[in-house]
Amino acid sequence: MDISPVLTRIDDDLNAASDRLKDLLRIPSISTDPAYAAQCQQAADWLVADLQSLGAEASKRPTPGHPMVVGHIGEGGPHLLFYGHYDVQPVDPLELWDRDPFDPQIEDTPQGKVIRGRGTSDDKGQLMTFVEACRAWIAVHGQLPCRITFFFEGEEESGSPSLIPFMQENAAELKSDIALICDTGMFDPETPCITTMLRGLMGEEVTITGPSRDLHSGMFGGIAMNPIRVLTKVLAGLHDDTGRVTLPGFYDDVPELPAALREQWAALGDPGEMARDFLGAVGLSQPAGENTRTGLEMIWSRPTCDVNGIWGGYTGAGFKTVLPSQAHAKVSFRLVGNQDPQAIRAAFRAYVEDQLPPDCSVEFKAHGASPAAAMDTTSPLFEAARGALSDEWPNPAVFAGCGGSIPIAGYFSDYLDMPAMLIGFGLDDDQIHSPNEKYALTSFHKGMRSWVRVLGAARQS
Amino acid sequence: MDISPVLTRIDDDLNAASDRLKDLLRIPSISTDPAYAAQCQQAADWLVADLQSLGAEASKRPTPGHPMVVGHIGEGGPHLLFYGHYDVQPVDPLELWDRDPFDPQIEDTPQGKVIRGRGTSDDKGQLMTFVEACRAWIAVHGQLPCRITFFFEGEEESGSPSLIPFMQENAAELKSDIALICDTGMFDPETPCITTMLRGLMGEEVTITGPSRDLHSGMFGGIAMNPIRVLTKVLAGLHDDTGRVTLPGFYDDVPELPAALREQWAALGDPGEMARDFLGAVGLSQPAGENTRTGLEMIWSRPTCDVNGIWGGYTGAGFKTVLPSQAHAKVSFRLVGNQDPQAIRAAFRAYVEDQLPPDCSVEFKAHGASPAAAMDTTSPLFEAARGALSDEWPNPAVFAGCGGSIPIAGYFSDYLDMPAMLIGFGLDDDQIHSPNEKYALTSFHKGMRSWVRVLGAARQS
Repeated sequence: MDISPVLTRIDDDLNAASDRLKDLLRIPSISTDPAYAAQCQQAADWLVADLQSLGAEASKRPTPGHPMVVGHIGEGGPHLLFYGHYDVQPVDPLELWDRDPFDPQIEDTPQGKVIRGRGTSDDKGQLMTFVEACRAWIAVHGQLPCRITFFFEGEEESGSPSLIPFMQENAAELKSDIALICDTGMFDPETPCITTMLRGLMGEEVTITGPSRDLHSGMFGGIAMNPIRVLTKVLAGLHDDTGRVTLPGFYDDVPELPAALREQWAALGDPGEMARDFLGAVGLSQPAGENTRTGLEMIWSRPTCDVNGIWGGYTGAGFKTVLPSQAHAKVSFRLVGNQDPQAIRAAFRAYVEDQLPPDCSVEFKAHGASPAAAMDTTSPLFEAARGALSDEWPNPAVFAGCGGSIPIAGYFSDYLDMPAMLIGFGLDDDQIHSPNEKYALTSFHKGMRSWVRVLGAARQS
Repeated sequence: MDISPVLTRIDDDLNAASDRLKDLLRIPSISTDPAYAAQCQQAADWLVADLQSLGAEASKRPTPGHPMVVGHIGEGGPHLLFYGHYDVQPVDPLELWDRDPFDPQIEDTPQGKVIRGRGTSDDKGQLMTFVEACRAWIAVHGQLPCRITFFFEGEEESGSPSLIPFMQENAAELKSDIALICDTGMFDPETPCITTMLRGLMGEEVTITGPSRDLHSGMFGGIAMNPIRVLTKVLAGLHDDTGRVTLPGFYDDVPELPAALREQWAALGDPGEMARDFLGAVGLSQPAGENTRTGLEMIWSRPTCDVNGIWGGYTGAGFKTVLPSQAHAKVSFRLVGNQDPQAIRAAFRAYVEDQLPPDCSVEFKAHGASPAAAMDTTSPLFEAARGALSDEWPNPAVFAGCGGSIPIAGYFSDYLDMPAMLIGFGLDDDQIHSPNEKYALTSFHKGMRSWVRVLGAARQS
């Protein structure tokens, strides 16, 4: 089956495809907020109807949380499963949006046309690139080149509590040759990538208690230990002057980069220039990680530590001379290679306890732990997809790392014993999880065309 | 004029004096809340009527805020001005009170009888110790031993915005030989004190900005500088391992304690034991200040630095892997001796700027600056009062420091060129500004008797 007419169909149908995406974007399916439970149902219903309009056998599947959507269509190998999520992040602070986040529109920007609205890039726009590629295949050829299973989740932005049980209970139905996941980004606007390395994540919440109650700093200041002083000392000690994390044993299970990947990454451009460009977009210029590593390594293949939140004492307007009883922080570690999240958690707790003055106590709260994941790229589908993407975009596709954690990729391996391939068309400036989220119209248009090519290449691989 | 019958009169009249205090306590004169403006007027009217019942020439004086009360009575030197405030703190959280805060009653406790209610200790109960002492003098002798000016404020708990202008506009009327201020505490329940050293205060709010917007720590973690990391490093560096503040020049204008005071303080008890008792009440045991200083020095005569508030990133329930754009802290310094608040502010700002990585910027917000105050204790009235207090209580009175700032003491010196003497009968566990505020009945009873003695001693000094 020829892909050229299918690509032409994508081009001709772009406006109608954008309108369908806007329909889905108008549904405020915020999964983390119980007030939007009905809207999550509504988004699932919309997707079921859309898959049925393609001729797929599709249904909404209840879970203890928001429902899954599962659909099947087509015949022949390979059997591809496509995963995406229909839920979105909350929109606050609403006042920082330039438009209603759930009234999406196409806007002209200096970087070209974009679709603006919550969920455009994460993940409704990406999800629909695949659905629209299937629609075009069916419109032109009356069928798809192979069997496809759609698997859409509605809890990705709220920790996916129902995902693993659902995968286990429906393993026979979901098991396929490979999972395609469209929830990642391009290397740059001209260079597509397949994400083959994902960092893990370990999160901890720390509460340090000093005095048994809030004190007046006039009466007690100077003699009573201030837990903020203890907390800042503990946190400040987590990095040394070279940017390395100081926890004992932290780097023990961190591998050096394989030579083949090192070469691919080196071909992407001058490391210093890339780091400056990447940081320049967010008002920075100096890489803050280990000073012997390139910027790409810092975010793709090296572990990190960040304080994601800190609070204690009086934080309102004006001033209050309180010496607080407690100080708090949320700390996370991005993990790579074989770093064991539980071992890193234990090392962190031991480090904090070791720094505590005798009068202070500490409580820890565990916040999730997932190891890093490296995809098995030996399946011929990986090289087939890399070729298909390279045909569509100006630059050849690259096997890339990803600084974030996408647990779903590991779940397919762990619970369904199948590989996963991460292909996405997001750009660094999409402002996902932030006000004014957008998806470049090029990402949407060439994303659909990319999937048309990947489906064609998969059939032949 | 003999003081013995006046002291007897105080003892005989205790119940009636308590009832008068309860009348005043029932008026919810919360100055910071505009909803209670009428009640502040009502409290001022009550005091005017009470002073007039003594035969004083007294009136309510309007200000742009709550009114002042000024009254004059008696003849002969020295001319004493008595300052107190009739306004009280808000009562929230109301659910933590064991009784209606404005329905005061006398309760039996393991530490003896107390008067429970908002304003009992801060400051209506203390204010009335002096008024009642005057009433007893008049009841017994038909007159006071010297000329007295009463000066009551209704904005002490809300920043005293009208105080300095009123003092300036009415300087001729208010100018006296010395101001007596009853808004402080005892050293312990058996040891009265005259507070002669007050620490100053300089407050700063710091905002450190890294990236131009909040980032996802998956995408940017490891390469982008996290402003919380910068802030914790800056704050952690403010103290060295011996508990000293590290700002250059910080201790330049900090005097050593005069030998006479050092002796008085040494006589108060074993320094280690005192520190343990003081800290034990709030769940601590180890003094956190300079490790070469006693606990009393740490809070009375040494400067400090405390972080009173810190915040940045995600501080809600659960976890969000944000790498925030900004991190904030409120930092204050308690000052002693001749430390110049503006010089310390400049040293702090220079220190922070010096620690900033090239990519981060900092904004400062000034939050008030008052130098330390040391009373001029050369007036014979100080030794006369110390003798009078020593006669009333089990232990001799001491000239003490106070860790907090009481700006009014400096205002008498700055705007009326007259000394001030701080004598109060509050106890550390009075829970001022907190739920279940109380004033020991001993504080009230022996406080009235103390003022009877001070008035008698002042006449003879």
